[in-house]
Amino acid sequence: MPRDMAQDTSIYDRRESGARSYCRAFPASFARAQGSELFSAEGDRYIDFLAGCSSLNYGHNDPDMKAALVKHISQDGLAHALDFHTEEKEAFLRAYEANILAPRGMDYRVMMTGPTGTNAVEAAIKLARKVTGRRNVVAFTNGFHGMTMGALSLTGNASKRGGAGGGSLNDVTHMPFEGALGPDVDTLQVIDGLLGNPSSGIDAPAAFVFEPIQGEGGLNVASNAWMRGIETLARKYGALVIVDDIQAGCGRSGSYFSFERAGIKPDMVTQAKSLSGFGLPFAALLIKSELDVWKPAEHNGTFRGNTHAFVTARVAIEKFWADDAFEAELAAKSVMLTSAFKEVADLIEGARLKGRGLMQGVDVGSGELAGAICARAYEKGLVIETSGARDEVVKCLAPLTTPDAILREGFDILLEATRGALAERAAA
Amino acid sequence: MPRDMAQDTSIYDRRESGARSYCRAFPASFARAQGSELFSAEGDRYIDFLAGCSSLNYGHNDPDMKAALVKHISQDGLAHALDFHTEEKEAFLRAYEANILAPRGMDYRVMMTGPTGTNAVEAAIKLARKVTGRRNVVAFTNGFHGMTMGALSLTGNASKRGGAGGGSLNDVTHMPFEGALGPDVDTLQVIDGLLGNPSSGIDAPAAFVFEPIQGEGGLNVASNAWMRGIETLARKYGALVIVDDIQAGCGRSGSYFSFERAGIKPDMVTQAKSLSGFGLPFAALLIKSELDVWKPAEHNGTFRGNTHAFVTARVAIEKFWADDAFEAELAAKSVMLTSAFKEVADLIEGARLKGRGLMQGVDVGSGELAGAICARAYEKGLVIETSGARDEVVKCLAPLTTPDAILREGFDILLEATRGALAERAAA
Amino acid sequence: MPRDMAQDTSIYDRRESGARSYCRAFPASFARAQGSELFSAEGDRYIDFLAGCSSLNYGHNDPDMKAALVKHISQDGLAHALDFHTEEKEAFLRAYEANILAPRGMDYRVMMTGPTGTNAVEAAIKLARKVTGRRNVVAFTNGFHGMTMGALSLTGNASKRGGAGGGSLNDVTHMPFEGALGPDVDTLQVIDGLLGNPSSGIDAPAAFVFEPIQGEGGLNVASNAWMRGIETLARKYGALVIVDDIQAGCGRSGSYFSFERAGIKPDMVTQAKSLSGFGLPFAALLIKSELDVWKPAEHNGTFRGNTHAFVTARVAIEKFWADDAFEAELAAKSVMLTSAFKEVADLIEGARLKGRGLMQGVDVGSGELAGAICARAYEKGLVIETSGARDEVVKCLAPLTTPDAILREGFDILLEATRGALAERAAA
Amino acid sequence: MPRDMAQDTSIYDRRESGARSYCRAFPASFARAQGSELFSAEGDRYIDFLAGCSSLNYGHNDPDMKAALVKHISQDGLAHALDFHTEEKEAFLRAYEANILAPRGMDYRVMMTGPTGTNAVEAAIKLARKVTGRRNVVAFTNGFHGMTMGALSLTGNASKRGGAGGGSLNDVTHMPFEGALGPDVDTLQVIDGLLGNPSSGIDAPAAFVFEPIQGEGGLNVASNAWMRGIETLARKYGALVIVDDIQAGCGRSGSYFSFERAGIKPDMVTQAKSLSGFGLPFAALLIKSELDVWKPAEHNGTFRGNTHAFVTARVAIEKFWADDAFEAELAAKSVMLTSAFKEVADLIEGARLKGRGLMQGVDVGSGELAGAICARAYEKGLVIETSGARDEVVKCLAPLTTPDAILREGFDILLEATRGALAERAAA
Repeated sequence: MPRDMAQDTSIYDRRESGARSYCRAFPASFARAQGSELFSAEGDRYIDFLAGCSSLNYGHNDPDMKAALVKHISQDGLAHALDFHTEEKEAFLRAYEANILAPRGMDYRVMMTGPTGTNAVEAAIKLARKVTGRRNVVAFTNGFHGMTMGALSLTGNASKRGGAGGGSLNDVTHMPFEGALGPDVDTLQVIDGLLGNPSSGIDAPAAFVFEPIQGEGGLNVASNAWMRGIETLARKYGALVIVDDIQAGCGRSGSYFSFERAGIKPDMVTQAKSLSGFGLPFAALLIKSELDVWKPAEHNGTFRGNTHAFVTARVAIEKFWADDAFEAELAAKSVMLTSAFKEVADLIEGARLKGRGLMQGVDVGSGELAGAICARAYEKGLVIETSGARDEVVKCLAPLTTPDAILREGFDILLEATRGALAERAAA
Repeated sequence: MPRDMAQDTSIYDRRESGARSYCRAFPASFARAQGSELFSAEGDRYIDFLAGCSSLNYGHNDPDMKAALVKHISQDGLAHALDFHTEEKEAFLRAYEANILAPRGMDYRVMMTGPTGTNAVEAAIKLARKVTGRRNVVAFTNGFHGMTMGALSLTGNASKRGGAGGGSLNDVTHMPFEGALGPDVDTLQVIDGLLGNPSSGIDAPAAFVFEPIQGEGGLNVASNAWMRGIETLARKYGALVIVDDIQAGCGRSGSYFSFERAGIKPDMVTQAKSLSGFGLPFAALLIKSELDVWKPAEHNGTFRGNTHAFVTARVAIEKFWADDAFEAELAAKSVMLTSAFKEVADLIEGARLKGRGLMQGVDVGSGELAGAICARAYEKGLVIETSGARDEVVKCLAPLTTPDAILREGFDILLEATRGALAERAAA
Repeated sequence: MPRDMAQDTSIYDRRESGARSYCRAFPASFARAQGSELFSAEGDRYIDFLAGCSSLNYGHNDPDMKAALVKHISQDGLAHALDFHTEEKEAFLRAYEANILAPRGMDYRVMMTGPTGTNAVEAAIKLARKVTGRRNVVAFTNGFHGMTMGALSLTGNASKRGGAGGGSLNDVTHMPFEGALGPDVDTLQVIDGLLGNPSSGIDAPAAFVFEPIQGEGGLNVASNAWMRGIETLARKYGALVIVDDIQAGCGRSGSYFSFERAGIKPDMVTQAKSLSGFGLPFAALLIKSELDVWKPAEHNGTFRGNTHAFVTARVAIEKFWADDAFEAELAAKSVMLTSAFKEVADLIEGARLKGRGLMQGVDVGSGELAGAICARAYEKGLVIETSGARDEVVKCLAPLTTPDAILREGFDILLEATRGALAERAAA
Repeated sequence: MPRDMAQDTSIYDRRESGARSYCRAFPASFARAQGSELFSAEGDRYIDFLAGCSSLNYGHNDPDMKAALVKHISQDGLAHALDFHTEEKEAFLRAYEANILAPRGMDYRVMMTGPTGTNAVEAAIKLARKVTGRRNVVAFTNGFHGMTMGALSLTGNASKRGGAGGGSLNDVTHMPFEGALGPDVDTLQVIDGLLGNPSSGIDAPAAFVFEPIQGEGGLNVASNAWMRGIETLARKYGALVIVDDIQAGCGRSGSYFSFERAGIKPDMVTQAKSLSGFGLPFAALLIKSELDVWKPAEHNGTFRGNTHAFVTARVAIEKFWADDAFEAELAAKSVMLTSAFKEVADLIEGARLKGRGLMQGVDVGSGELAGAICARAYEKGLVIETSGARDEVVKCLAPLTTPDAILREGFDILLEATRGALAERAAA
């Protein structure tokens, strides 16, 4: 493709919707990517601390997945197979059962929803309502679950909710996530106090839906005790537990599922983003086998069988999750990230470390400063974004496979960008 | 993969949700596909009159798309790019503008929603509500628009709606599609009579959402006059026109868009299914430029940039839609289909031809008979399914590129299956 | 009270809400009323063709009811008794059973809802949903059922609905009333066509709610065949039949209930307005005994026992409904009304007679003309109002007991007012 | 009425809905009432500590109101006047302005809603949504606001909510009332924490609706600081303050309005129950003049002008609220009540005093015990009921005018009943 085309971005203004967003902060035209690096059409190199918002946990174009996918396509393997039986789906299910479910003692069914996270969330709340005969679903402050009407009703962000244009976002009660009411308020007590009161006006819930680590919400981490508390409250009030593990799953938290360390047994778990391993659209809903009361096609979707994604997902599982080695690597990298973010935080008065595992960041106190830091980082070749209710957290979602040297290089850029942004602010 | 694995399907019972459906009617394990043919792991050949529910309009593994995709992957092109600028997205937009929009005089923006049809529908109704400040949306009997809560609220099918488990499917008024009240009732008059009455109790609508040919609903065809009538009513009552062209678009109706021949100018058009050309997840919402009031990221989604799909979609557009040749082929094939289905219909008392273009079928009078025909066809090597409110229509969605000989071969199977099913019924 | 107070109405502007309405069209300060006559503080006499919107079917201050009420109060009978047993409630129930239910072969329970029509309607739809386990309720174009959120969701009028300020008016499907789609469209067929289609998107209804004669909606009369058709459709689709007889009941239609002549057996009937006979707040919901599944206090209300109303209601029932004499009088008056309105209609090109029984009027073609007629009538001493979706119907709701001479006097005023309004329009 | 009729209550089983409730606990047939005493048909005397649930604050059949009402009726004053101007309405408004609004510096309009509390609540939330353009309304745990769908959506009680039969009770966020989360949790902080978070998922509210003393909810008292805190939060977040003063108003709290002592300026105040003074159906919504944006008849209701109630309400205002004497009496009686309830509480381990003013009670720890106490009290001639989420509070709502000797007599019965119930429990 000629270079001049890449430099003329008027086609986007003319023909792509104003809803586009990342290309505004990171306007390069990206041409190639490998591992944790992106390369623009002009040949500029960027370190990728965004990784498709945690969709590229194994980096770009993992060579094993790539080889398997090219082979599949070359051999006229099916691309689109609805929910037919295919060798690729079968192999994926077997790998998933053997390497993910069985070692964790999990008896779940895999529901191939439409291949987007929001679709898995929609399927989850529909099923919870079917199973319990209740309509209300409890979601949490700062939760992010998607943009379709059902998932959006669970999502906290006011600007995203405004996109509904006044359509009803009902049948949901929003409760405080751990820490959301300040350090002194026990949110479990608040929730118990409300649900335990038969005159609270809050209808008995079908389910609690939560993210163990709130990715969009600002890297808020639920403690093990809190997760267990939610599970206990759910059992007490006859509700199901749905873990939305779309962003924090697939190793991002340090283990395959982000809830593992709490020892809870969610009734359903949503997966998407890095499930395919390669960045391909793929989502699934794990359902405890006894709750899988779906009738055939009662929830369906044209792209629910993305065979290309089955191919790469199977490779990802077999390559990274057949034993404990990868998890051990993640533990080491997690320590390194905390240490690196501490360097950043030390530059900023009042900054706080956020997140855990490979999903860490720093609350720099304001969205303005966080934005300035990320903008300067981009100029120096680092793609990194903010999160949080006020965009106040600088968040690292680098591929889990990022070599230490590249991580270090990225953090050096981040430190420099932070210093620059602080100096500019001081000068203003 | 060893043959014995393929023969043991217990993994599906054990680990895949009961929501799976097509694999129940078509239990083969499919290994390979080319053009209009599917091959099972055992080497059995099937003619594909389903084509991923119209997601494979150009057949399986089109060689040009396949080559471009393999090249893209081999060169470490991005798989997942959020909504970054990429050369592939740019090339897709340019091709779409040059070959689809410009020749039709259409000034639209392309919104890359999540890569599923239901997501494009959700984005459309959200935007319609934002633009108009109204909440009510008019949808139509037998309409099918998706399974997420917003799209499901538009969908007619009671069984699908039941999947919501009692969650609210509100803010929608369901009106009769053309012909839905029998031949004597002018549904435009019914709609006008209701909306024109300030005491009808039906709130002023933000939009009308309809499919020019109802794919799931039984191949009900809106006449040009009816489509123009809907556009006229929408203008009269200040509502937008949203065409859901997910199943009938991309040439399926005989032209690129199914509404072209009516000469209407929808405010929004949803596309998915065959948009990628290769069966990859990809959806888009076309929005009249002046209505594109989305704020950045107000509706977003992790997989909204499926770069692999941009690659194949561009090839599809340039290969099939750069001139009128393909459309001329479709016209010829459409005639052939009508004639072939007439042979089927002639076997069955009271049978009626349905659909148009490459989206035709026959209403055989009962879901039982239609199901029996399709089951027998499958045994003879033809994959074909039913549609309609009572599954009473045998529907052909063969790839648009299916060679005449294979079409003929498929219909011979269908005729034989029909005769067999009728004989069995007569014997019972 | 001194005359000058009566003439200074600034207190209303200063202290009564802008929601007040009748006093704007009829600004006299009324001091006294008897039978069908109102007298202002200044001593002006008005003939009352409004009768509290059919709340004063037996005229103002019926001497027998008045005597009974004064006696009750003088003897320290209870005014407010919640739902205690009182002699007055018991006597009312016995009179109602003996004179209303038993002669008509009706086995119903009387639910004392809050003493307003809208409350009876709310109770009815709540119970229908409880009994059927369904949420959707079918209401009809031009229906009027009240202003509280549940009843308002059933009400057709867009301006009234706008009063909800955007609060959700959901769980209702609005269907066309008989004739609402013009003379050529069989609305029963439309309704059957929609409900009989399992892919219509219209959820199975808990109930049909309709007024046999739509009072606010423009005196639209349901034929016996249509009412029976609705009952048949309800049985066919497992829905209850709720007749809202608030305005058309208590003799207004010519018989005690307005649905009697159709021979239908509604599952519930709402009553209010003239139920007390004296204009006192009183409403009740009749429920087929086998459907009365309310738990104690599940629907309650402070004023559900208006003992004063029990006293007057009992007198009304015993005085007017112990035999057929009153009904015979109504039949005669009904003929007289038709004839009188025909005189009015004959003055106006295109005018149409509306209504039946003692609930008749004339559609004069425009709200402007109807308003001008009523305004002129008021100047001449006749209180009469408009109804209809566009206020195009001049409606007579004179007390059922109005002497023929006063009826004639009223119509003479109305004729004069009509001529005047027409002359003014011609001159403009 | 013959005694034998009164003794046969089969008419109720046969013809009154199962929704009836008080007559089950207090099955006497009441024939006469004066002041704080009820007399059955058999001549049994009961002390009335229920007073129509606070609808009879001035006792039964106050002689001045009675005389005025009998005179009005005898002179053919209007009973039913829609919202016409009448001398009685004018006199009421003038008395209300002079004695209630003006001395308190309140510039409000009086909206005559339908004559039930629930209707005033419905009007309030409709207007709040109209004024703010927002849909969400904040209500509080243990709040009780009525049974029609809008008011029921605000009501906390799960059993009452169940009466909706699954109809949507949406557009409301239920927040904890003061103390509802235990003594350690500052509910204002919880509310502020949720509303102040732009990612809480709780849409910006149109209004806060609360009862300064929760009558049905268990006599929970909002402190002055909490009421001011709610007003401050409302102003901070652009919401209106609606005080539901239906049960606690008209002197019940010790002052005319229950919120007076907090010094807040609600945007709207609902009144009903004792507004007429005589137990007649009458409700009103006070609206700050600048917020009274209702269009004529945008919210209406047949019985919105209950002229009989205007007559008695005017007398009540002029008799009790023209100076401070009555309020001083109430202060003295309030002290007496606290002291009397302390005697009761002292008998029961863990009992807690509840309420304030003339709306006090004792939380006896269980609904079972509270029920047993009230049942025994009734046998001894005292009508008194429970309240609270679990019916655990014995509540006194004696007329405000109850002579000290009768109050004492009632409490002696209550003490005896308490001792009896405790003894029975101990014996069990």
